[in-house]
Amino acid sequence: MEMALDEARAAGARGEVPIGAVVVLDGAVVARAGNRTRELYDVTAHAEVAAIRMACEVLGQERLVGADLYVSLEPCTMCAAAISFARIRRLYYGAEDPKGGAVDNGVRFYAQPTCHHAPEVYSGLNETESADILRTFFAEKRELP
Amino acid sequence: MEMALDEARAAGARGEVPIGAVVVLDGAVVARAGNRTRELYDVTAHAEVAAIRMACEVLGQERLVGADLYVSLEPCTMCAAAISFARIRRLYYGAEDPKGGAVDNGVRFYAQPTCHHAPEVYSGLNETESADILRTFFAEKRELP
Repeated sequence: MEMALDEARAAGARGEVPIGAVVVLDGAVVARAGNRTRELYDVTAHAEVAAIRMACEVLGQERLVGADLYVSLEPCTMCAAAISFARIRRLYYGAEDPKGGAVDNGVRFYAQPTCHHAPEVYSGLNETESADILRTFFAEKRELP
Repeated sequence: MEMALDEARAAGARGEVPIGAVVVLDGAVVARAGNRTRELYDVTAHAEVAAIRMACEVLGQERLVGADLYVSLEPCTMCAAAISFARIRRLYYGAEDPKGGAVDNGVRFYAQPTCHHAPEVYSGLNETESADILRTFFAEKRELP
């Protein structure tokens, strides 16, 4: 999770909403990514989707059976579904996102009948730090002229 | 929608689940794509996400305000959210997908409080043809040794 927070901070330094994600398989990091929606002009390039794409590419496989994903913020609806499709085993996330989250908030995708694979979910890891990174980013943005 | 069906058939010919999508802006096609999850080892490369990414890249912008998306099947949870994030104006889709859809089935994302932009939705365009393409594809797959 520390590595996911580093990716979040790096995303913030690039002017992106500071969220970071890491994919781990068999104890090894196979992908780490921060949010890159602005840089790539890609509205789907959230940290989780970027990390999953990278991991699939590195491993040359379409699914990530047995892999775990660490992300600084509760995944949104798009990412929650992508995590399910990728067959991620365990999802660890930092702060909850009542406005946009889809795991313990919003559509609670993993509890729905149209969800065909649900990861084990562990929430609240480095929660305060994760939320602080986001809070500081938006506070600084508001101060800009 | 005819073009989306062509993309669906082309995807099927490549061995992918046959779904196709087209993005139209100001009366012009800016992106067309079929499902490429297998070819790209990218679980997120559904037709809709592929077409949205392509359109964003072509236009050099992160959002597709005023653009319409045509897709042969009701979008899944991931794609429904990506369509919302991209600020698609109108969504036209073919067949409904009770098992995996997220527009008029499943999480019905556009009716949820955590959905911050909902496109206008028009369903049932070339519905029979869209469904037939999928049905034929899976029937042929089952016949393979």
